[in-house]
Amino acid sequence: MEPRISIITIATDDLDRAVRFYEGMGLTRHAGITEGVAFFQTGGAILGLFPRQSAEEDSGVTFGKAPSAVYLAYNTRSDAEVDAVLAMAERAGGRIVKPAGRAFWGGWYGYFADADGHIWEVAHNPAFPIAEDGSISLPG
Amino acid sequence: MEPRISIITIATDDLDRAVRFYEGMGLTRHAGITEGVAFFQTGGAILGLFPRQSAEEDSGVTFGKAPSAVYLAYNTRSDAEVDAVLAMAERAGGRIVKPAGRAFWGGWYGYFADADGHIWEVAHNPAFPIAEDGSISLPG
Repeated sequence: MEPRISIITIATDDLDRAVRFYEGMGLTRHAGITEGVAFFQTGGAILGLFPRQSAEEDSGVTFGKAPSAVYLAYNTRSDAEVDAVLAMAERAGGRIVKPAGRAFWGGWYGYFADADGHIWEVAHNPAFPIAEDGSISLPG
Repeated sequence: MEPRISIITIATDDLDRAVRFYEGMGLTRHAGITEGVAFFQTGGAILGLFPRQSAEEDSGVTFGKAPSAVYLAYNTRSDAEVDAVLAMAERAGGRIVKPAGRAFWGGWYGYFADADGHIWEVAHNPAFPIAEDGSISLPG
């Protein structure tokens, strides 16, 4: 297995609501494939929104409830950007789960829940550098 | 929000077991930060393994049970690689959830569960090109 993750899919309880949320976060839905699914190009990976029923039919799996124990993080380039992303999540129909504050590791961070109740951490961690193309790296 | 996902974290019920699983999948644990957490560089994003209790204390969230409704996909460059990755997952301590088969969209794919029971799809989808660096793209 090469060290990469291709697609992060959210088995959503309401596809239209989830699309509105992620569009409200500034992501652009892929215009080509829209039948019962939504895709967003996110750097070298893809974010997918797929109705829970479709995902369960396809996989044969009954997925657990939100908030999912697999959760996502958006790392920012500044403390102020953390505040801005959390505010944007609230405006887009999400919920602030933990308001921004100082981390024991020195950064500035908080958490929001998306429209389905799945969790995103939003963090400014200067120890994990972000390249111009948005790639993040562990310390060398 | 720039279109990117920085970190995908699994709030694991057994950190050592989860590390063994992902190392068994061929990923290399980051040697620098190992105290109560494990990180893996995966392309331009990071895979994190964090004990459920730590994740819940940090976020104030009680995470749902596996299999998580946020699930991951590893896209391959060939059908044969799908079979190989699924076999590797079984050897590493995972479980085949859906054996490889032909997809209605023309590809070859299956699903496994990791050591915690979280789901990965493994798919060869020629319509989603994979660059040499592992980045995947939606059709243009």
